[in-house]
Amino acid sequence: MRTTIGWQADRATAQLRRTPLQRRDLRPDDLAVRVDYCGVCHSDLHAVGSRDPESGRPLVPGHEFTGVVTETGPAVTRFSVGDAVAVGNIVDSCGECLMCHAGQENFCHTSPTLTYGDVDRHDGSTTLGGYSREYVVRDGFAYPLPAGLDPAAAAPLLCAGVTVWEPLHTLGVGPGSRVAVAGLGGLGHLAVKFAVALGADTSVISRSPDKADDARRLGAHGFVVSTDPDRMTAARDRFDVVIDTISAPHDIGPYLRLVAMDGTLSQVGHLGPVTVETIDLLVGRKKLSSAGSGGRPATAAMLEFCAEHSLTADIELLPSARVNEAFDRLRRNDVRYRFVLDMSDLT
Amino acid sequence: MRTTIGWQADRATAQLRRTPLQRRDLRPDDLAVRVDYCGVCHSDLHAVGSRDPESGRPLVPGHEFTGVVTETGPAVTRFSVGDAVAVGNIVDSCGECLMCHAGQENFCHTSPTLTYGDVDRHDGSTTLGGYSREYVVRDGFAYPLPAGLDPAAAAPLLCAGVTVWEPLHTLGVGPGSRVAVAGLGGLGHLAVKFAVALGADTSVISRSPDKADDARRLGAHGFVVSTDPDRMTAARDRFDVVIDTISAPHDIGPYLRLVAMDGTLSQVGHLGPVTVETIDLLVGRKKLSSAGSGGRPATAAMLEFCAEHSLTADIELLPSARVNEAFDRLRRNDVRYRFVLDMSDLT
Repeated sequence: MRTTIGWQADRATAQLRRTPLQRRDLRPDDLAVRVDYCGVCHSDLHAVGSRDPESGRPLVPGHEFTGVVTETGPAVTRFSVGDAVAVGNIVDSCGECLMCHAGQENFCHTSPTLTYGDVDRHDGSTTLGGYSREYVVRDGFAYPLPAGLDPAAAAPLLCAGVTVWEPLHTLGVGPGSRVAVAGLGGLGHLAVKFAVALGADTSVISRSPDKADDARRLGAHGFVVSTDPDRMTAARDRFDVVIDTISAPHDIGPYLRLVAMDGTLSQVGHLGPVTVETIDLLVGRKKLSSAGSGGRPATAAMLEFCAEHSLTADIELLPSARVNEAFDRLRRNDVRYRFVLDMSDLT
Repeated sequence: MRTTIGWQADRATAQLRRTPLQRRDLRPDDLAVRVDYCGVCHSDLHAVGSRDPESGRPLVPGHEFTGVVTETGPAVTRFSVGDAVAVGNIVDSCGECLMCHAGQENFCHTSPTLTYGDVDRHDGSTTLGGYSREYVVRDGFAYPLPAGLDPAAAAPLLCAGVTVWEPLHTLGVGPGSRVAVAGLGGLGHLAVKFAVALGADTSVISRSPDKADDARRLGAHGFVVSTDPDRMTAARDRFDVVIDTISAPHDIGPYLRLVAMDGTLSQVGHLGPVTVETIDLLVGRKKLSSAGSGGRPATAAMLEFCAEHSLTADIELLPSARVNEAFDRLRRNDVRYRFVLDMSDLT
């Protein structure tokens, strides 16, 4: 086994504390990656908050990170020591089912192996995430980090980025599309950047009128204050695609009513049960969908697109030792728009 | 005013009783139609059951009927006396909004005028439905009944038919499509006939194994018993389109899991709030939609398609005097597959 250092959820307090961690010895198709930057995702907060302290399973969050290859297994051909790489929220899949063959490893019929809090499909160990100085990953689930992308600001692309890329891409967003992004946080600000870069007429829908300037700065052409009924009524039936990134449970009716004839609302922020009035779908032949992460081809395509458009996340970079502060502020939505932890203090 | 006879919901008993009714004098663009056959729709049952006896507004159900033009207003050019016509569940709309211009009068921004239980947009009167011997309708909302279609068996096409036609057509069902129809009733049996005629590989999903023979007779290629977990698991991710025609509230999760990657479940049977687990949409990038009736172009196209394929509903024809018996049996789902009332006893 290999030893590294990381941030693990404390059994009793739910604070993250610095802990030595073990990584597996490299299998033939494994890479060892020195983790340089890891994004702080809402699901990390959720995982720590909802962990079962009695399970005895260690929890090290982090599933959007960038770094450098430090060692390769003998069967690895795609990467060499020194390569800049990125890893997202899945690190393995069966490779044999219909979904894996379709390049949708995220929908693997036997469930993909998640980057943390999951069970390794070969040795049964608990996967430990990217809040650590080293990660060992199967080569197929690491992506070359395109030159020119800042590795810190690129880290959130691997989860937040691909999650909003998937619906925009699948729904055919491009020049002429009318896109609205509900909620301007980690997911939302990337959705705006992507939609703008794809050539769509892009609006932000937010409760906070004070985000209008930021929305414009991110490239948005329109801004709708969701608490203003007149503005919401005026925006009715106006968007081909609404990407709903709001992370708290909420009534999706008002957002569905903004969707144009034959358009789609994609729910990416709050995953859980959603209640929809059929009439809100029926009138205007609207569709409800959802997205979360993506398969390998989509992830690679998204990174290429980002390189082409010099597109990364707006981040606040903190030394990893300030992870608990990042969690506190994320709980209060006090971040524009993604915390990224700098792991160089883990020595 | 013109006088006719129809079946009106009794204030106290919710039984339908034979009553003289008044129809408006013809406006320039009106037709008078002798109603020959009117289908009994689940929503008729619902309308009678949920009526407000204190409202003082008369309720005459019926929104899928066929008949013959007996008189035309001076501005009518599309129809002549003696023409066979069909009328569905909407009889007017604003004609000026985006939806009306798009031929989706069913989504008219100011709400289409429903065939019964609604308010006429010109004189404020209550619309009275097709359970009557005469109906007066704006010419734009009557359709020529194609020659060769039995007028009794064609009546249900105007509501049940177009309701299932819409999603099949919009979702591009054709040769090579894999379609499942959940529930084999008035809507479901027409969905099967349409899907088969469109060239799709078509399956029926039903709680009742005893409907397998009927499903085959209707042309279905497959049959899945929804209460058999093994069969439902085997059918997972198998259908591009699932048309859910089940009229009672139910968990749509099991049906969503049958939808293939990038496929759609269209909810047409039970209209009301639906709760969906986001994960059931997310995994496989599935979509939820809904449908109910259609605009004028879709209705006309559906009737042409039916004429081409000699496609009508499987009906049980009853004299209109047996309408209460039809309601009782419909409540128990004791009909294969649609009651149609013969109005010739209303003299």
